[in-house]
Amino acid sequence: MTRRHRDAPVIGLDLGGTKIAAALVGTDGTVLARRTLPTPATSGADAVLDALAQAARAVWAPGAAAIGVAAAGVIDPAAGTVTSATDTIRGWAGTALATGLATRTGLPVACDNDVRAAAATELAGLGADGTFVYAAVGTGVGGAVAAGGRMLHGAAGIAGHLGHLPSPEATGLPCTCGATGHLEAIAAGPAITAHYGRISGESADRLQTVAERAAHGDAHARSAITLGARAVGRALGGLANALGPHRVVVAGGVPGIGAPYWEALCAAFAAELMLPLRALRPAAPNGGADAAVLGAAELTRTLPLHDPLTTGVRP
Amino acid sequence: MTRRHRDAPVIGLDLGGTKIAAALVGTDGTVLARRTLPTPATSGADAVLDALAQAARAVWAPGAAAIGVAAAGVIDPAAGTVTSATDTIRGWAGTALATGLATRTGLPVACDNDVRAAAATELAGLGADGTFVYAAVGTGVGGAVAAGGRMLHGAAGIAGHLGHLPSPEATGLPCTCGATGHLEAIAAGPAITAHYGRISGESADRLQTVAERAAHGDAHARSAITLGARAVGRALGGLANALGPHRVVVAGGVPGIGAPYWEALCAAFAAELMLPLRALRPAAPNGGADAAVLGAAELTRTLPLHDPLTTGVRP
Repeated sequence: MTRRHRDAPVIGLDLGGTKIAAALVGTDGTVLARRTLPTPATSGADAVLDALAQAARAVWAPGAAAIGVAAAGVIDPAAGTVTSATDTIRGWAGTALATGLATRTGLPVACDNDVRAAAATELAGLGADGTFVYAAVGTGVGGAVAAGGRMLHGAAGIAGHLGHLPSPEATGLPCTCGATGHLEAIAAGPAITAHYGRISGESADRLQTVAERAAHGDAHARSAITLGARAVGRALGGLANALGPHRVVVAGGVPGIGAPYWEALCAAFAAELMLPLRALRPAAPNGGADAAVLGAAELTRTLPLHDPLTTGVRP
Repeated sequence: MTRRHRDAPVIGLDLGGTKIAAALVGTDGTVLARRTLPTPATSGADAVLDALAQAARAVWAPGAAAIGVAAAGVIDPAAGTVTSATDTIRGWAGTALATGLATRTGLPVACDNDVRAAAATELAGLGADGTFVYAAVGTGVGGAVAAGGRMLHGAAGIAGHLGHLPSPEATGLPCTCGATGHLEAIAAGPAITAHYGRISGESADRLQTVAERAAHGDAHARSAITLGARAVGRALGGLANALGPHRVVVAGGVPGIGAPYWEALCAAFAAELMLPLRALRPAAPNGGADAAVLGAAELTRTLPLHDPLTTGVRP
């Protein structure tokens, strides 16, 4: 793994559906400057690349050596492109992210999936043979898997799509990917909200509403939330049997909705584990508010850098 | 990864519940001598170690530099011990396999799980970033996972236990590991036979009987077989979404029971895959009759070697 720019600050950009977070990160990993800009999500890929360049310039300082971009969707770090994406950002799939941004800024660019970038900040302390599973449960269910101290990218950059494991709890439910019965279809935030609607006959606009009703004693709301939690725990427990991870992290907005969620997840996880793994517990991310931009900046040190004005990758 | 003894022949031993296969393997990977002995499975671990030493001596030739042992159960290659095992071999769990055999033969010994050793013979052609999933469907459902060109061992050596992924097809069924609803509980050979008994009310002594009845038009027999196949295909398809493997192999005795099994497995696998993986197909192992002993011999080149008369590992 080529490591570069340990001797110069780099820029980390975290591209989300609503905002772009930018940071200048020093050689010691401290954030030297921050800026947040809105994502022009409905204006097309060129407008998004322009906004990313603007965010990078907003935190730039003399000596900044490279840009790391963490973005939603399936990203191919070798090609520097967006392999596939939902319509959260219009026209995002197929975008030449790395060269597009490198050309706009004059700096070399490395890019990867946002979840994998955030997960990379959780690898510290794992040994060279360490195996690691990171789940992100939010609007969708994504994640990252590391083995031998390195993030797996897998064929077409797809490694880490934990939301598309079969889930007994999701039997028959359509998944965003076109298949049926996947974890995401019962465990993502909107899926929990939809399941609450199905079992209660009541409508709820978003997960927070379901969580509030659960807190006030609504049995259907509690049931939908714990079912989503159990489904995640069970899928991760089975994956733990298959991979033998030394650490399992569950991140994302959904686990933050309350203690009953986390308790149900941990109980379901523990019930799946083979005997030699019984001491393993899911953990919340160490994270912190800067995890996304720090993870993005770190990409410049571990992934191929794409140069401005060319389609080549730096040797 | 330290590689040794490329310049000398090594001995490969494959320890099964009924027989021990031994081979002397030359530096070019050809088998120079073969022997098969019965496993004294009910006589205790010392008797099994004695039989392994006898098998090694039977193929030994001057210059043989090391022994690789592939054995059933969860094996810790670093400690050289059997972490856990079923009662197929009495008293096998906890055995100091590597030093026990090294002391008996005077040769350094490397050891690993038998499925992982066989899977290692299938890694050729995968790139340095290659990710690989190998399932073995037989009396149980096991397997191996490789990433970055290396077999994963995982915490407690447990990586590859694919039979303990949750399976919607196995909902409510008890698993050998103590949990419920795992893949092995519906897809292992004895599980297919048991499921046939449940849905038909007829008894069958073994999978071959069920397969014969399916071939003669028994709808319940066909149903039990294709359900097991679908469960494997679905679990592997979901795992493919999570890991993005470049190759998926399905080995073991069960896939050999007929074309309908393989067709059902492949169809269920394909239905799970995310779009970027759609070209991926499960493959039968390249294998050949010597795969087990060749895989065992290869362990001497990739894993820690345990010396005779000491508990140390060679530097």
